Amino acid sequence: MKSASFHPPKRLLMGPGPSDLHPRVLAAMAQPTIGHLDPAFIDLMDDIKRRLQAAFGTANELTMPISGPGSAGMEACFVNLVEPGDVVVVCVNGVFGGRMKENVERMGGHAVLVEDAWGSPVDPAKVEAALAAHPGAKALAFVHAETSTGVQSDAAALCALAAKHGALSIVDTVTSLGGIPVAVDAWGADAVYSGTQKCLSCAPGLSPITFSPRAVEAVKARKTKCPSWFLDFSLLLGYWGGGAKRAYHHTAPVNALYGLHESLVLLEEEGLEQSWARHALQHRALVAGLEAMGLGLPVAPAHRLPQLNAVTVPDSIDEAAVRAQLLSRFGLEIGAGLGALAGKVWRIGLMGQSASPAHVMACLTGLETVLAEMQAPIATGRATGAASQILFG
Amino acid sequence: MKSASFHPPKRLLMGPGPSDLHPRVLAAMAQPTIGHLDPAFIDLMDDIKRRLQAAFGTANELTMPISGPGSAGMEACFVNLVEPGDVVVVCVNGVFGGRMKENVERMGGHAVLVEDAWGSPVDPAKVEAALAAHPGAKALAFVHAETSTGVQSDAAALCALAAKHGALSIVDTVTSLGGIPVAVDAWGADAVYSGTQKCLSCAPGLSPITFSPRAVEAVKARKTKCPSWFLDFSLLLGYWGGGAKRAYHHTAPVNALYGLHESLVLLEEEGLEQSWARHALQHRALVAGLEAMGLGLPVAPAHRLPQLNAVTVPDSIDEAAVRAQLLSRFGLEIGAGLGALAGKVWRIGLMGQSASPAHVMACLTGLETVLAEMQAPIATGRATGAASQILFG
Repeated sequence: MKSASFHPPKRLLMGPGPSDLHPRVLAAMAQPTIGHLDPAFIDLMDDIKRRLQAAFGTANELTMPISGPGSAGMEACFVNLVEPGDVVVVCVNGVFGGRMKENVERMGGHAVLVEDAWGSPVDPAKVEAALAAHPGAKALAFVHAETSTGVQSDAAALCALAAKHGALSIVDTVTSLGGIPVAVDAWGADAVYSGTQKCLSCAPGLSPITFSPRAVEAVKARKTKCPSWFLDFSLLLGYWGGGAKRAYHHTAPVNALYGLHESLVLLEEEGLEQSWARHALQHRALVAGLEAMGLGLPVAPAHRLPQLNAVTVPDSIDEAAVRAQLLSRFGLEIGAGLGALAGKVWRIGLMGQSASPAHVMACLTGLETVLAEMQAPIATGRATGAASQILFG
Repeated sequence: MKSASFHPPKRLLMGPGPSDLHPRVLAAMAQPTIGHLDPAFIDLMDDIKRRLQAAFGTANELTMPISGPGSAGMEACFVNLVEPGDVVVVCVNGVFGGRMKENVERMGGHAVLVEDAWGSPVDPAKVEAALAAHPGAKALAFVHAETSTGVQSDAAALCALAAKHGALSIVDTVTSLGGIPVAVDAWGADAVYSGTQKCLSCAPGLSPITFSPRAVEAVKARKTKCPSWFLDFSLLLGYWGGGAKRAYHHTAPVNALYGLHESLVLLEEEGLEQSWARHALQHRALVAGLEAMGLGLPVAPAHRLPQLNAVTVPDSIDEAAVRAQLLSRFGLEIGAGLGALAGKVWRIGLMGQSASPAHVMACLTGLETVLAEMQAPIATGRATGAASQILFG
């Protein structure tokens, strides 16, 4: 009899997230559930907070995982900071900047857009002009690492511009945290959210966030009640704010937090800098292999994210057919283009545990095999050697 | 060297949730993560939807787990259905009715309260009067199983009143689903949410919801945009709505959904009616034991929830000290009173996998031991025998 239970097929996850989980993270999530008000669980919450502070590079007291995916973390930032009538300068250079605009408008705020081409970083000069043209803007919002294009923007410069103009900075680090330097306090960033299923290599479903004291003041100074009860920081603080007396707000996702904790322990064991270096190295190897094959990367080298690589689909190749074959024959997941880049690029993730030589080699081998069969104009027999030289010298 | 990894202490969960998880559910969550757009995952989503429809007793097309805890599910119902100026009749007979009021008001709606004593069910006569006094009310909102008091209200009667007065019914079944009959279509309920960590015995962090076609029409007829992007059903439907073409909305909590699926497989294996009967039997045994000890239950027998038992704390007993001893010496978690009942009652859960003879016996033994040591006015030596007679004849 066929079991009704679900057993996932074997995969190598090299899309835009989720990434492959370390066996220790999977095992952590399978530990028996305990109560969300159990003293042992409260200790765990404190330790997660401390470890998130280290990962974010911050001493912010309000640092915690939101009990929902990255988009809930994004919403938590906007719903707590933006009130009706507030002006927010929103940088759009991909899908996720567009979501920020949606968030602002749904809060009754006015979004002033600073638009850059998909595949380019946010232009600080345009941001400066927009902030100058809108004195009193409540916040500047931008995406540090655009998952839809694989582009990194200059978070330090953008946060400094916000501060100079008296605006709060709201920063999306969903794809950057753990993979490239995130330095919340050094940047002077005010409201920062991330996700667990990218470079932290944890299951999707949680969104680490951190708020600066200035952002907390802004929450406290609200004239209107936060429209969301679930995400209201004035209530959540009673639960995650520390201290022995925790006020019940909602039932925390206990087993998911076991997993996040273990992924943060792994990050500490490896070291943040070492994790960044590993992502950079695997990226160089992947790019060397792709270029040896003759495939192009549309993002300029200076702005590329090591953990998310946009690759140009060769002319006349059906990009979806390539992904389908990689999945069915090699168990390999890579990502499609989104929005303006749909059909034009693949997105190859090297995030967390998926930033490994085995992943790089499997991806190059699979791509080369499938593209060669489709008679794409690529050079064969060179990719893995080029990557190997970077990885192993 | 002490490991930095977290390993939870051994517990028996008999509080108001989470309940103990079946080992198969824990194991399911530890399976490797796959992509949220993987064809195998899409099949899993379809199967979860079908199984949730069976559990809810509904054919509603819009049936899915929200990627957040029960309070996100509550918010999803209100944020999608309530627009500024809408009148909603809200029944308050415990903590969670009070949260519904908060939700209505944060949406800009006007909450008309129907209040009943904590420990009593919602009074349909008062509801009828409120609906009659507020013609054109958009919705009636009530809690089927009040987790803060252990009281069941008559969902069929209340939904019928809403329908009679042209109002939508919004029903909280967080604690009821799987433990006592929930019959969404037979009730004619319109918007129903639940949680995973109660009688489904799954990890906390997901909220199954179901919307009737009438509720979906109300979402489509909105004059204003849903203030939440994350919970906007007009967007979520593109992801969970079925069909081969799924629009990416957010990254689903893949491993948590593995767990929910397995808990629904277990529920099907046992049978819904058998699960209800098991909860009822364990409840009768627990009550027999508590009464044999001389402890009182403040809720009238006709309105008691089998899965959540409020027990009166004997005079002169420090209820928190009892819970602390049960936890530290017996690994047994029971719940404190909330709100108006804080300090006055314990809340003993018999939910899902925690509705078992072993749990009943452990709880009676632990309570009797600790209370006797504290010289509480109880009868000793009788509780487990009384329970055993119910369980084993």
